[in-house]
Amino acid sequence: MNVLWIFAHPEPRSFSGALRDDGLRTLREQGANVRESDLYAMKWNPLVDADDFGSAAGSDRLIVGATSKKAFTSGELSDDILAEQEKLAWADAVILQFPLWWAGMPAILKGWFDRVFVKGFAYGIQRPDGRTLRYGEGMLAGKRAMVVLTAGAPERTLGPRGVNGEINDLLFPLQHGTLWYAGMSVLPPLTVCGADRVSPEEYGIAAEALRERLRTLSTSDPIPFRRQNFGDYDEHLVLRDGLASGLSGIGVHTA
Amino acid sequence: MNVLWIFAHPEPRSFSGALRDDGLRTLREQGANVRESDLYAMKWNPLVDADDFGSAAGSDRLIVGATSKKAFTSGELSDDILAEQEKLAWADAVILQFPLWWAGMPAILKGWFDRVFVKGFAYGIQRPDGRTLRYGEGMLAGKRAMVVLTAGAPERTLGPRGVNGEINDLLFPLQHGTLWYAGMSVLPPLTVCGADRVSPEEYGIAAEALRERLRTLSTSDPIPFRRQNFGDYDEHLVLRDGLASGLSGIGVHTA
Repeated sequence: MNVLWIFAHPEPRSFSGALRDDGLRTLREQGANVRESDLYAMKWNPLVDADDFGSAAGSDRLIVGATSKKAFTSGELSDDILAEQEKLAWADAVILQFPLWWAGMPAILKGWFDRVFVKGFAYGIQRPDGRTLRYGEGMLAGKRAMVVLTAGAPERTLGPRGVNGEINDLLFPLQHGTLWYAGMSVLPPLTVCGADRVSPEEYGIAAEALRERLRTLSTSDPIPFRRQNFGDYDEHLVLRDGLASGLSGIGVHTA
Repeated sequence: MNVLWIFAHPEPRSFSGALRDDGLRTLREQGANVRESDLYAMKWNPLVDADDFGSAAGSDRLIVGATSKKAFTSGELSDDILAEQEKLAWADAVILQFPLWWAGMPAILKGWFDRVFVKGFAYGIQRPDGRTLRYGEGMLAGKRAMVVLTAGAPERTLGPRGVNGEINDLLFPLQHGTLWYAGMSVLPPLTVCGADRVSPEEYGIAAEALRERLRTLSTSDPIPFRRQNFGDYDEHLVLRDGLASGLSGIGVHTA
């Protein structure tokens, strides 16, 4: 199994860094092939701009989607983007590890998606019938993804009625709107709470939970998000009346 | 009224840029004092790292929350962060304008929050009784915030049962988990869909909708998110049983 580990924390000597090292070791012991994108160590540039697209950008006003597709097709994307796309094409599974900052990803990781997931590669691919490959289909379909998250907040505050909102709801833009959108199967996240004040015992528990999740990386069930093009959504891409009747919100998009 | 307009789009000649210009003009015609943070034009650095915190960072491992509080207290935050905090302190209302990329903010804007909303300034302030000022209270309480959003997706796909998820659910990490967390009153967002292919007529409709929202910026009702410290949440910060009984998910945090 080929696993790409994306790490988005500024401090390698952190609790997160120790978990990452533990996770990589576990994968190697399992016989997995492992590659890493340590975004801070790589000094990853998170900002989409015309420089991403070579001569495809021209000097006209920049329309990000269309220009990214043109540059992807003509091979003019910048080298750092191409390198990440090559890793993604290689990977069977992707681990996304980050600290929860302001209820979401650190900017460096958001900008990894903004720049790497260009049109033609991760979205905007049409089927012959005109429907777009999206939400369960696409060039990344068949690959698995899992979020490994550290949070300062106590666990109950990220539960179903906790003040911060349930963690899967906070991750919906990433897990559904990005990973599943691009076709990837998303495993339930591993969330480690109270990360700035863990004891050695708590570290041991978190590391063992991570090892267990990595041992079952290729076998555990993904979140059953609904697929776009298999009958659940109508021609306007709205969920059909007979499904989750009378309900709305994030929960209706899970079967 | 003092209004800070934060703009996070790489192309000033875009539809978004035209809307921004229109919005700023409208505010000035109303007699508002306007300042702007055009993040791409400013070449805003979105990456939290030790350089943000001066000598407060030391050479030990970086613990972002604690170190940011130390640097905030001792006045050692970097100048670009201090400049944005000064603008926020000045503002009565903040407009956050961005294109929806991967169901969220562009990295440059996420990194504005990651770096500017440091501990001691936007979170981590304790009351004498030990409760933390958060969700409706804090140093930014009394200020208003409004998201102005452009999206490529058609409107129905961002509706209550649309395949992309309802727009307020996608914005929950920003509107609730960031702005309301820090105490700000959040007005409903203005969402303009199909932004890459607007006709002059459609531009006119969008610009008029924006002008109307700016005319009522100081008077319209904010989203009625629940406050943390006024009885709705128990001592573990979980919503009390008697409220939104039997329900969970993002909706329970709105009264």
